[in-house]
Amino acid sequence: MDDTHRGTSPADRFNVAQAVSGEPSDVPALMRDIGGRARLAARRLAIATAEEKNEALRAMAARIRDASAAILSANAEDVAEAKAKGQTSAFLDRLTLNPERVESIAAAVESIAALPDPVGRVLATFERPNGLRIERVATPLGVIGVIFESRPNVTADAGALCLKAGNAAILRTGSESFRTSLAIAEAMGQGLSDAGLPADAIRLVPTRDRAAVGAMLSGLEGNIDVIVPRGGKSLVARVQDEARVPVFAHLEGICHVFVHAKADLEMAKRIALNAKMRRTGVCGSAETLLVDRACAATHLKPLVAMLLDAGCAVRGDEAAQAADPHVTPATEEDWRTEYLDAIISVRVVDGLDAAIAHIETYGSHHTDSIVTGDAAAAERFMAEVDSAIVLHNASTQFADGGEFGFGAEIGIATGRMHARGPVGVEQLTSFKYRIRGSGQTRP
Amino acid sequence: MDDTHRGTSPADRFNVAQAVSGEPSDVPALMRDIGGRARLAARRLAIATAEEKNEALRAMAARIRDASAAILSANAEDVAEAKAKGQTSAFLDRLTLNPERVESIAAAVESIAALPDPVGRVLATFERPNGLRIERVATPLGVIGVIFESRPNVTADAGALCLKAGNAAILRTGSESFRTSLAIAEAMGQGLSDAGLPADAIRLVPTRDRAAVGAMLSGLEGNIDVIVPRGGKSLVARVQDEARVPVFAHLEGICHVFVHAKADLEMAKRIALNAKMRRTGVCGSAETLLVDRACAATHLKPLVAMLLDAGCAVRGDEAAQAADPHVTPATEEDWRTEYLDAIISVRVVDGLDAAIAHIETYGSHHTDSIVTGDAAAAERFMAEVDSAIVLHNASTQFADGGEFGFGAEIGIATGRMHARGPVGVEQLTSFKYRIRGSGQTRP
Repeated sequence: MDDTHRGTSPADRFNVAQAVSGEPSDVPALMRDIGGRARLAARRLAIATAEEKNEALRAMAARIRDASAAILSANAEDVAEAKAKGQTSAFLDRLTLNPERVESIAAAVESIAALPDPVGRVLATFERPNGLRIERVATPLGVIGVIFESRPNVTADAGALCLKAGNAAILRTGSESFRTSLAIAEAMGQGLSDAGLPADAIRLVPTRDRAAVGAMLSGLEGNIDVIVPRGGKSLVARVQDEARVPVFAHLEGICHVFVHAKADLEMAKRIALNAKMRRTGVCGSAETLLVDRACAATHLKPLVAMLLDAGCAVRGDEAAQAADPHVTPATEEDWRTEYLDAIISVRVVDGLDAAIAHIETYGSHHTDSIVTGDAAAAERFMAEVDSAIVLHNASTQFADGGEFGFGAEIGIATGRMHARGPVGVEQLTSFKYRIRGSGQTRP
Repeated sequence: MDDTHRGTSPADRFNVAQAVSGEPSDVPALMRDIGGRARLAARRLAIATAEEKNEALRAMAARIRDASAAILSANAEDVAEAKAKGQTSAFLDRLTLNPERVESIAAAVESIAALPDPVGRVLATFERPNGLRIERVATPLGVIGVIFESRPNVTADAGALCLKAGNAAILRTGSESFRTSLAIAEAMGQGLSDAGLPADAIRLVPTRDRAAVGAMLSGLEGNIDVIVPRGGKSLVARVQDEARVPVFAHLEGICHVFVHAKADLEMAKRIALNAKMRRTGVCGSAETLLVDRACAATHLKPLVAMLLDAGCAVRGDEAAQAADPHVTPATEEDWRTEYLDAIISVRVVDGLDAAIAHIETYGSHHTDSIVTGDAAAAERFMAEVDSAIVLHNASTQFADGGEFGFGAEIGIATGRMHARGPVGVEQLTSFKYRIRGSGQTRP
């Protein structure tokens, strides 16, 4: 920190104009300051009541509504810059806000207030022979760093989810939605203050400088407890490679539907169609259809025809190619590819074991489904496929926190540590042991 | 791998004589091989039944008993080398086995077989409006790396705990118990084979080369899911600094007893004495006694006198020094010191808030206790002290998996991710979601 700014923190010195212009600045000092403030805010949040947090969430929603004009104006600048840079129309559509979209951002924050409080839940209790009463009780995790691409709504969603679980959040948005996200974050900070909670509890990184991401991945000197990346594969891969703190993420969703010998054909068609085509760009969409050789004679051709009819390109092994002339050859690489598009790879496998082996070899431990009338085969599939979510007779597109009843999710994790599957507010908590005695000492 | 050994894995080529002599060898290839084999073994263990795992544990115990002579002979070599190197008598005592100690190692493995199976527990169930039945069910974590100092029993304890939870274990022992640990690990491998499980499921790193530790900390190319260090502060600090995978550990146990204004003096004396002096070398022993100024006039002098009488050195603030001439001055450094010895620091604080502030400033988030008759003060202390274990009217020495009823623990964790407090077999598991449907597709 230089002398002329003595008494002013680096965070205070930042302003939007400076940040947007990319003017050189002391990013490491800024990020250290943000980390320290987040930790202090987290200590306050850890003892906040459910009602304090919910009041803050409702105040944030109100402040977002009040700031609608400012948010839309900031967004117009972001959109203009993105247009000038030649972004695609799909990108511009995701970036562009209108009054209805601002309202839905505010409403989403309110809906998080309505969820049950995940902190303070008694997860287990045991009374010991010596009379000690031990409770495992849910606590906040601490400070959560969220790194996301240019989706304006994530600023509000992620900040609100972290707050609900008593955590401070340090948010890093993609460059293209920087002004919009700053305007939303400012409204959220005002809402926190309105409710008597520290505005530092939700903080957008106020610079586009890429060095800020590296600082977050280093953990800000112990002041970030976990990082959640939300975005494409390259963002997640970088975070997973470089983060020195735990990461809740999935790199990709190479999801499978396995049509077992005992599958009902109509159900298999319905599930395969929905798993692939309901939305092709989501992580829970199916990328590979495996068909049991024992039912291929009856099931393969109708399944392939149904997918082709629905406008899906089909890449298949020899059996699938034989089923329809429109099937193109699948290469080894296809089994490892997350298309995120109306393309599916189709393979005939020799029974349950071969299906499991294929999924364990090529899958991404995200979400996999078996269609079968054979309960024992289903149980084996669900036991042996090592994925966060395994389904029997249901579409892989149910891989979503909302569909699980979690209310909202910050992402889906495929790691095995702490959180796995949809990461809702419960997964954003840790726990502690509370022990109540009457003077016990240990023999 | 060089041509002359084609067809033989690096792991097979290692032998004890070579490893002990420190002869140069291809440690990276060896460790890669061990990691790959552990992952394959973990896949088999993930679908092992409780009875298969328990049969293996009982067979391991039997093989350890059968190998008693070989284990004792290996141990004699380790002890002779340690003596020649001038190790302390306390060190040699911990290192030295006799027939009774081998029997207790075997019995400990059997006792782990008797614990409930932590895998397959249904942790939560929810039925959705669309009829989907969702279960969160416990699964193994995968491959656990355990790095420990020269305690022969840890080889068996850690391997058995990991196996019970369906995990493969890669064990790295301290150099001084290398031969002993190898002999124990060999017996465990035989027990696994006896029960039809892969011997690779529990593997001692067969070299003293320190490069093996670095390889483990790197995660062996994704083949180690979590590292558990067991040993002194320098070992844990190195692991926490360098590991690229999650770590379950505590760096130190700076545990506090806070005697609140409303504490019963006799109970406070009993708890303080036990917390400090029952065993001074364990992580749950108290290092600092905080006394509320509101009861210092009546409680401080008797507490200090009791500790001094028990043979404990007391370092105190001015008030504590005034209470007894044998109290020496405490420095700022004392509040941050884990003595692991018959020494305690004593400070008078201005009430509950000051006690919590002291613990949050100087503590290590391990185990802290309040003595008070005031239930509201106790609840605030247990809510606001951010430690893995918080107690009311009980000794900090209860910080132990056995005392929690966990049967056994692999260590105590102070991090907030995944495991916290005593890490027993339940904390060595992850989970997945199993979803059972009847053809549901997502709208």
